[in-house]
Amino acid sequence: MKGKIKIAICGYGNLGRGVEKEIVRSEDMELVAVFSRRNMLEIASNVPVVNMKDIGKWTDKVDVVIMCGGSATDLPVQVPAVAKMFNTVDSFDTHAKIPEYYKAVNESAMSANKTSLISGGWDPGMFSVMRTYANAIMDQGTTYTFWGKGVSQGHSDAIRRVAGVKNGVQYTIPVEEAMERVRNGENPELTTADKHLRECFVVAEEGADKAAIENEIKTMPNYFSDYNTIVHFVSEEELKANHSKMSHGGFVIHSAETGNGNKQIIEYSLKLDSNPEFTASALIALARATYRMNKSGQYGAKTILDVPPALMSKKSSEELRKELL
Amino acid sequence: MKGKIKIAICGYGNLGRGVEKEIVRSEDMELVAVFSRRNMLEIASNVPVVNMKDIGKWTDKVDVVIMCGGSATDLPVQVPAVAKMFNTVDSFDTHAKIPEYYKAVNESAMSANKTSLISGGWDPGMFSVMRTYANAIMDQGTTYTFWGKGVSQGHSDAIRRVAGVKNGVQYTIPVEEAMERVRNGENPELTTADKHLRECFVVAEEGADKAAIENEIKTMPNYFSDYNTIVHFVSEEELKANHSKMSHGGFVIHSAETGNGNKQIIEYSLKLDSNPEFTASALIALARATYRMNKSGQYGAKTILDVPPALMSKKSSEELRKELL
Repeated sequence: MKGKIKIAICGYGNLGRGVEKEIVRSEDMELVAVFSRRNMLEIASNVPVVNMKDIGKWTDKVDVVIMCGGSATDLPVQVPAVAKMFNTVDSFDTHAKIPEYYKAVNESAMSANKTSLISGGWDPGMFSVMRTYANAIMDQGTTYTFWGKGVSQGHSDAIRRVAGVKNGVQYTIPVEEAMERVRNGENPELTTADKHLRECFVVAEEGADKAAIENEIKTMPNYFSDYNTIVHFVSEEELKANHSKMSHGGFVIHSAETGNGNKQIIEYSLKLDSNPEFTASALIALARATYRMNKSGQYGAKTILDVPPALMSKKSSEELRKELL
Repeated sequence: MKGKIKIAICGYGNLGRGVEKEIVRSEDMELVAVFSRRNMLEIASNVPVVNMKDIGKWTDKVDVVIMCGGSATDLPVQVPAVAKMFNTVDSFDTHAKIPEYYKAVNESAMSANKTSLISGGWDPGMFSVMRTYANAIMDQGTTYTFWGKGVSQGHSDAIRRVAGVKNGVQYTIPVEEAMERVRNGENPELTTADKHLRECFVVAEEGADKAAIENEIKTMPNYFSDYNTIVHFVSEEELKANHSKMSHGGFVIHSAETGNGNKQIIEYSLKLDSNPEFTASALIALARATYRMNKSGQYGAKTILDVPPALMSKKSSEELRKELL
């Protein structure tokens, strides 16, 4: 084997730590640095912690940077900047803003002959792949996406940014009867609120206006305003004891008819004990694909829909044909 | 839109008729001919039926030939021959012989700057894609494939060769408890026989010894002897009425642990009322991808693992990012 693919992590939260933990399983890759805005960061592995302002010195020491910041404020600023110097992979997950995000990242990456894989977690990410395959094969059908039960980091972060909130966790919960109707091929019309509940456990700061907090959460655009949202106020102790797991999951179900009324049902599901560790594993496989795409001259912003599955695998095409095809 | 992608069907059995029926849904494609060894073939659509020996005259009138013959004897002979003249797509499904089949088709296609997509149904095909993604993301885990409930042609043929049997159909049925153990992350060791039941509906000839037939089926090596096999005797009328559907399906379940014992379960399933119509729909989407790969200079034999999902879709990359990512 030639030299290993040299990976840097940018951002050291749950996702960054997940990448650090899981990358040791990929013997064709090695972690070489953690980029952070914080100076005195303690990390688990024995690689340098580099302040973000100095990352320009690392351009010839890193093949791909896995961007592990948040979608709300970190990635829209960081990725267009970093993509001018490095190949990048990220899990930007604000669906409505993907077109403008793509445009900004694409301009940066194209200007430097770099490759940036955007929105590569599981939704967007693997779920997008499933929607695309199902639609490509039977676009006369309808695709339904259900999330949960699980904690959404993005939605929990959103709760925690509300004034007066000390801490909070948000569960997305799929509605079982709605899923059964889809699996039966009933092809129902379902709003997002028909498909999900959003259940929030919130720790308020002392003296905060709980009614105002509840109202601000429930009316927050993109995150909560379209959903049936339940807000519970709990103590910090209760939140820690009962709501600290980062499990998640969901379902993509496509229902279509072919011929004369033959029902065809495709279903994909994830049941994840650790959302950040699964996302980290997906981003690592996509970093491998991104490195290969850049080597073959495919520059600019890409999504997982542009990636042949084989490019994400350690196995050669010959091994894949023999063992997994 | 530019000119439509011109498709020919080669072989007019269940799969060929499925392609003919489903291709009308793809407004970017048109059926232009059916190639057949039979001369007087009646077909449903209003396109020429061309004898196989004359297909050389059609090289500039067809963009992709969808090869619809059987894997046992048709495809291994036909595809290496046709791939010297046309881009092709097929659903060759004899897993053990894929490496040698790939080699033969690749040589033909490379010699003529054509592109041949092999083994593109659902297993191999979509199930291969699912095994590859799961393995690329978490290769520390185990992937389980379950088939059914559905009719196995090979096993039905085996029943019909038993002395005293007039007709018969065999269903492969996944064992629910085995699937539950996998879904629970128990990571069990399972043989094919642990994973499946074989249920047979048999029409006996008048005066035949049913006990002898049942014993011969249940003890048949390779096909039934290792399995929990159930044999029902039914009338010819009942077989026709209740067991003539071509439904099938199955499950690919990947179970892995990340971090410190976090279980991560990926599951993909198909529930198909019509196996040939679903396979036809998949081959049509792959014909679109094959045409595009050929136009961009990607010659030789390819599998669905080499195909970016976006290439199978009618939608532009921009539409996919906006609507399905």
